[in-house]
Amino acid sequence: MTGAKAPARLSLNQETIRQWSLPDLVAGCTAAGVGAVGLWREPVRGFGVRETAKLVSGAGLRVSSLCRGGFFTAADPAGRAAALQDNRRAVEEAAELGADVLVLVAGGLPAGDGDLVGARRRVVDVLGDLAPWAAGFGVRLGIEPLHPMFASDRCVVSTLGQALDIAEEFPAERVGVVADSYHLWWDERLSGDLRRAGAGGRLASVQLADWVTPLPEGALLGRGQLGDGCVDLRGFRQLADAAGYRGPVEVEIFHPGLWARDGSEVLKEVVERYRRHVE
Amino acid sequence: MTGAKAPARLSLNQETIRQWSLPDLVAGCTAAGVGAVGLWREPVRGFGVRETAKLVSGAGLRVSSLCRGGFFTAADPAGRAAALQDNRRAVEEAAELGADVLVLVAGGLPAGDGDLVGARRRVVDVLGDLAPWAAGFGVRLGIEPLHPMFASDRCVVSTLGQALDIAEEFPAERVGVVADSYHLWWDERLSGDLRRAGAGGRLASVQLADWVTPLPEGALLGRGQLGDGCVDLRGFRQLADAAGYRGPVEVEIFHPGLWARDGSEVLKEVVERYRRHVE
Repeated sequence: MTGAKAPARLSLNQETIRQWSLPDLVAGCTAAGVGAVGLWREPVRGFGVRETAKLVSGAGLRVSSLCRGGFFTAADPAGRAAALQDNRRAVEEAAELGADVLVLVAGGLPAGDGDLVGARRRVVDVLGDLAPWAAGFGVRLGIEPLHPMFASDRCVVSTLGQALDIAEEFPAERVGVVADSYHLWWDERLSGDLRRAGAGGRLASVQLADWVTPLPEGALLGRGQLGDGCVDLRGFRQLADAAGYRGPVEVEIFHPGLWARDGSEVLKEVVERYRRHVE
Repeated sequence: MTGAKAPARLSLNQETIRQWSLPDLVAGCTAAGVGAVGLWREPVRGFGVRETAKLVSGAGLRVSSLCRGGFFTAADPAGRAAALQDNRRAVEEAAELGADVLVLVAGGLPAGDGDLVGARRRVVDVLGDLAPWAAGFGVRLGIEPLHPMFASDRCVVSTLGQALDIAEEFPAERVGVVADSYHLWWDERLSGDLRRAGAGGRLASVQLADWVTPLPEGALLGRGQLGDGCVDLRGFRQLADAAGYRGPVEVEIFHPGLWARDGSEVLKEVVERYRRHVE
């Protein structure tokens, strides 16, 4: 690496270079001049929440997000109680890490249940318990809509408009939304919904990945490196900026091709692509 | 087969049992008491358009749809002229078959082009030429929105609302919309958009498949047999009925598992599943 500063708003989501340990991640970002990281609960807990917080803050890195809480849609009370308990722990972890936002993925449909409306209602119900808990820790929650292809098994919240409908049941400083280009690029309502999010002070995080086809089996690990797909990433970032967003722009790509390469080379490429396609 | 009549509105889309030749299809539907079929251009042209028309009408079968025209989104004039020419042929084929509707799939983004709005505009432009041509043959066009996961490579029209926005540029008797449960089930605006379609006399076809996960590589061949997934198929059919739809309900499933089985057994299962989950 050259040691040159990476673009000021670029944040690296840890999952983009999952082959890196947390010390690798911190060293790699420091060397590349990347000033912020998005973290995931599993590796953070593996390394230790306190240890991670110390490592990251010691390096002067901002934690732009913690992924992820959520999965609120269990139809049975026991399942929802378990989800609430797990999410309370996630809030505590986000607080200890000083994360800008705890990303929430709503969860899919329970087995044998086709009631999307009911599942979405349960998300609001659980947030009614979780939001005050998060307030007590000074943690902001961010509802992330996922692409409609994940509506049955991961996230019944499929558009930014739906995420806003839910977030707006709560105070803006407590519950915002997460806008990820990969999930939202196809939606003709996106620009209006981003304006709505900005006007209400709800835009808690912006994430980027490109859309590439063909989708792999299971669809989850098919996100594209910036510039490899069809998404107008600069336009997406500009819409967020025009809506008043001033925070980190987090690159979150799940792709085995990136995981198989040298992490520093991947980060160098991310920085180059960000300059070319986003900045 | 028992020879008992299948449900009166059930139509079998030919691709559901693609292992059948056209004579197999006609014989199989006749034996099962299925009164309508949806046809595809490629096998029809392979057998002969006139020969297919004679075979189908001779058996007293209704042709609920011809799949498919479309792919209008080429950015270059030559590409669009070629698409228009091919679609004019599709209109003639639909007329010869007496199909209720010629299904149109808009097409995806040209390579290296991320402009969804522009691509959607070109769909309207080509329809401006195609709709009068179709009128001359007495053929109705039906714009089919595909799931947003196909927005880049197959169809820039992703919701029933978008399909209606386009269709409403033309007379209702000439350009309608096709509502397929597989593509639309996740959309919270679906019930309102179906009402809008019905009120405007735009609902040209209703198709059914279930949503199952995990998606296979490429996503195209992952549609589920009725009842194998999470879609409220009866609710979908009831919404269409409540909007005033009285036409055939076409079962269109692309799944290699169905193609590997005996066609008559698959049709028997389709009829049973239709009775249990749709009627």
